Amino acid sequence: MTKPDRCIDVTQVSEWQEGKSRRFLDYLVAEEPLEIRVGGEPLAVTMRTPGHDRELVAGFLCTEGIIQSRDQITFLREDIDKSQSSNVVDVELTGTDCAPSNARRNFFSGSGCGICGKTSIDAIRARGIRAPNQNFRLDAELLCTLPDKLRSSQAVFGRTGGLHAAGLFSATGELIATREDVGRHNAVDKIVGWALLEGRLPLSQCLLVVSGRGGFEIIQKVLVAGIPLLASVSAPSGLAVRLAREFGLTLIGFLRGRRFLVYSGEERMVTARPRATHADQVRRHP
Amino acid sequence: MTKPDRCIDVTQVSEWQEGKSRRFLDYLVAEEPLEIRVGGEPLAVTMRTPGHDRELVAGFLCTEGIIQSRDQITFLREDIDKSQSSNVVDVELTGTDCAPSNARRNFFSGSGCGICGKTSIDAIRARGIRAPNQNFRLDAELLCTLPDKLRSSQAVFGRTGGLHAAGLFSATGELIATREDVGRHNAVDKIVGWALLEGRLPLSQCLLVVSGRGGFEIIQKVLVAGIPLLASVSAPSGLAVRLAREFGLTLIGFLRGRRFLVYSGEERMVTARPRATHADQVRRHP
Repeated sequence: MTKPDRCIDVTQVSEWQEGKSRRFLDYLVAEEPLEIRVGGEPLAVTMRTPGHDRELVAGFLCTEGIIQSRDQITFLREDIDKSQSSNVVDVELTGTDCAPSNARRNFFSGSGCGICGKTSIDAIRARGIRAPNQNFRLDAELLCTLPDKLRSSQAVFGRTGGLHAAGLFSATGELIATREDVGRHNAVDKIVGWALLEGRLPLSQCLLVVSGRGGFEIIQKVLVAGIPLLASVSAPSGLAVRLAREFGLTLIGFLRGRRFLVYSGEERMVTARPRATHADQVRRHP
Repeated sequence: MTKPDRCIDVTQVSEWQEGKSRRFLDYLVAEEPLEIRVGGEPLAVTMRTPGHDRELVAGFLCTEGIIQSRDQITFLREDIDKSQSSNVVDVELTGTDCAPSNARRNFFSGSGCGICGKTSIDAIRARGIRAPNQNFRLDAELLCTLPDKLRSSQAVFGRTGGLHAAGLFSATGELIATREDVGRHNAVDKIVGWALLEGRLPLSQCLLVVSGRGGFEIIQKVLVAGIPLLASVSAPSGLAVRLAREFGLTLIGFLRGRRFLVYSGEERMVTARPRATHADQVRRHP
């Protein structure tokens, strides 16, 4: 059993089961701090699963409102020493008034921004985020098939059980990109960063499926990316629902089997039934 | 259906199931930002589920290494206006060199502290955290009964499905305290803050059972509180296991039914079998 890649650790564990004990080697999801440096100055440190670090940084800068387009990134490099685990990403930015020392202060208070949920929503509104694509539609039956597609694409989770996943899908159910991380926020930032670096923002024709809960900060990140629909296998918070309604995001929770709950933006959900022909209508309503 | 308390919201949702749709009122876990002010200056803002806010603040200050005892808190008050949702806690501290402006900077970089996991562990070692109680012992069969005890004590989770729980137990399986929150870290901080304010730290005769994963930052908080054993129903990360081993914490994962994995500190786990008497031994090995 060799270490497969940077995002997995291998260690010896003891299993206790029904009163009996045995030892074996087990996979663990890797978790390491990543330092983001802007112009050589530290901006933030986040605990993350190594891999797709450039995307994570690009996504973080975007969803935290520090940059709006990839053109503002003039330089983006992982640490020089390629032989070791690289836990530093250096970036140079243009066209942003965020000097690292200011940005640090702003970022620090960014997640809350005030005294109540209403203030937090106001702060997001002030950033000029607009309602996502009103014309996006998704078939309810199709939606129910996506969590299984996401799980079968999760390379690391199957071996470690310790990861959150985010999967970006088209309206026809094609898996466009998937990312995993110990942190729910990071998995979403990696998706958004990928789209930013690929020049694909806003993601107005896509939906995002996440393995964890849909909290306030996940909704905020999804809105920044212009995604019109977020589906989670678990529960959202009250503030997440208020934010989704305020901005017209479709928010789905408890997506399990052939059941889900719609908390906001129900108009985007459709059920594709074969259309009744005129003859049918005549037969059924003579 | 009335709003039961501050930690629950009520809202209308649509349920889609097997092609049929219906509307009903549903419970949601509340999530609001909490601003922590030290000496009138903002120190941190965290998204949390309202309730036990004083404990959350006390626990946060303790597990982040800003204070070590309750005597350092000379003043701790929720916002003045009791008629509204109170999302500010004011504290005054003594015997800490953390001026809010410095503390803010320290706190900001506190979760990562450097370039790699090893540096992060070094930073925790430098804070003088010692190995928890070496003599603590726990029966394996007893441990398997605790997740059910924790779940049945979760008042809010049963209605919203959106909360993480942390339960503090004695070595004989008595539930001492339980706290719930949208954030895993907050649930642990609320427990530690409760213990700090009650003068019960270090919690050297207790174990903590958590509903979420055992990540690096949860291990750090548990070590600060002096808890010798942490059990999670889910997976730990590789860095969490390294930190637990470094400090001699017993770390249990995948605690489900009558099975669990021991990642560190196995010596604290015992299996209480009825001792064979001399007569028994004679009978069984004639």
